[in-house]
Amino acid sequence: MATRRVGPDRKRFGDYVIVEEPLEIRLDGNLVATTMRTPGHDFELAVGFCHAEGLLVDNGVRTIRYCATGSALATRYNVVTVDTDRPSRKAPTPRLGLTTSACGVCGSDAIDALCDRLLPLDTPAIPEPAVAGAVDAAVRSAQSLFTKTGSVHGAASFNVLTGELGPVREDIGRHNAVDKVVGRLQLDGALPADGLGLFVSGRASFEMVQKGWAAGFACVLAVGGPSSLAVATARAANLGLAAFARGENCTIYSPERSR
Amino acid sequence: MATRRVGPDRKRFGDYVIVEEPLEIRLDGNLVATTMRTPGHDFELAVGFCHAEGLLVDNGVRTIRYCATGSALATRYNVVTVDTDRPSRKAPTPRLGLTTSACGVCGSDAIDALCDRLLPLDTPAIPEPAVAGAVDAAVRSAQSLFTKTGSVHGAASFNVLTGELGPVREDIGRHNAVDKVVGRLQLDGALPADGLGLFVSGRASFEMVQKGWAAGFACVLAVGGPSSLAVATARAANLGLAAFARGENCTIYSPERSR
Repeated sequence: MATRRVGPDRKRFGDYVIVEEPLEIRLDGNLVATTMRTPGHDFELAVGFCHAEGLLVDNGVRTIRYCATGSALATRYNVVTVDTDRPSRKAPTPRLGLTTSACGVCGSDAIDALCDRLLPLDTPAIPEPAVAGAVDAAVRSAQSLFTKTGSVHGAASFNVLTGELGPVREDIGRHNAVDKVVGRLQLDGALPADGLGLFVSGRASFEMVQKGWAAGFACVLAVGGPSSLAVATARAANLGLAAFARGENCTIYSPERSR
Repeated sequence: MATRRVGPDRKRFGDYVIVEEPLEIRLDGNLVATTMRTPGHDFELAVGFCHAEGLLVDNGVRTIRYCATGSALATRYNVVTVDTDRPSRKAPTPRLGLTTSACGVCGSDAIDALCDRLLPLDTPAIPEPAVAGAVDAAVRSAQSLFTKTGSVHGAASFNVLTGELGPVREDIGRHNAVDKVVGRLQLDGALPADGLGLFVSGRASFEMVQKGWAAGFACVLAVGGPSSLAVATARAANLGLAAFARGENCTIYSPERSR
């Protein structure tokens, strides 16, 4: 891409930019979300998103396909339809925690709504420092898009005890990167993610913890910092939450007390 | 907050976490969005969001108020209503570029939709390196929440020629931080933002450029990298776009050719 660099330092990044395009996600024909994402692993993204929203509970995925109906050839890969075994007749509910028709939502309402749908986990876990450091290093070296563009989020699953990496996914949106990881695990029949941790290269917002809880991860390990609502949600979920993870260092926010 | 630090290094951050709570934004009584935001400058956020969505075109803001109807006292500050001089009878359209009822959206469709609503700007501008460096330093020192939490985005307006800072706002969401800046300028009668630049502490996604274009900024200066759609949109808008801005260094993506 034609760019011009200014200033005394030569930048490591700049000639390659990360691709961002909208993806429409449909479930049994109904629009459930449009997300700005980096193309690739779109089926995983669609399945992971639907899973996190609780739209696949007690319902299997039958097919996933690009939906070209009524659209030009150039845009046919920006619409994905997930078809389930038992399609619901009514349109799905809007995104949990992000849109609501109720007046007066607040943080505790959002946690209450999740607790109504999800049970607290059995055993919160935090990886040992050596494991966390190995995961951090392994994900960084697997982030091929970040290496080129300097501007993309990564997410991965890992074994909390051994640090063994599962799928690593990159996307301009960290929620999309997480959805792609969760979608892969779902398609592999590996959910709930017992004994697995969810690594995210950015901050730990409410949404990251919500998605981690819904998928049954034992912990969320974030390179960035957590939000107040993320900490409160992780504690309510009995989900391990460690943030500011760099190498073998991190700060543990949940569980509240030392093991 | 009770936390536990692990590893050889003591962290700079960890004891203070950034607050994240949902805010419902209503326009003339109709729900237009719920956003996860850091409380503070909520009225600016609501006005700036409505402005960016094109919901205040040819229509003045009459009042802005917290809307406690039907909600408990604890949550009354999480709902803001913007009332205009000429309320529309029909509910506002959904978020431009992020949700759409059309099948087959793609990047160029999103730009086309914006071009239908917004005219390309007259004169794209990129600040001189010394100005960009001064703005970067000034915003960093004004980011009091970042200093404490290490985990929050900042946005600011600045004079492209002199670097003089306008409002600086922080939020867990960079789109919210930008909305707060735009809302402040709108309430001060300072829009369109002729001769002003928009500084963002994170990456330059489509949404950042869209908001900058809608507010009439001459350029967007981002600390992080840009997306493909952000670059294409900035070029279509004739909006200056510089990214990977650190001190006096940056990479210029728009306008496409050297001045």
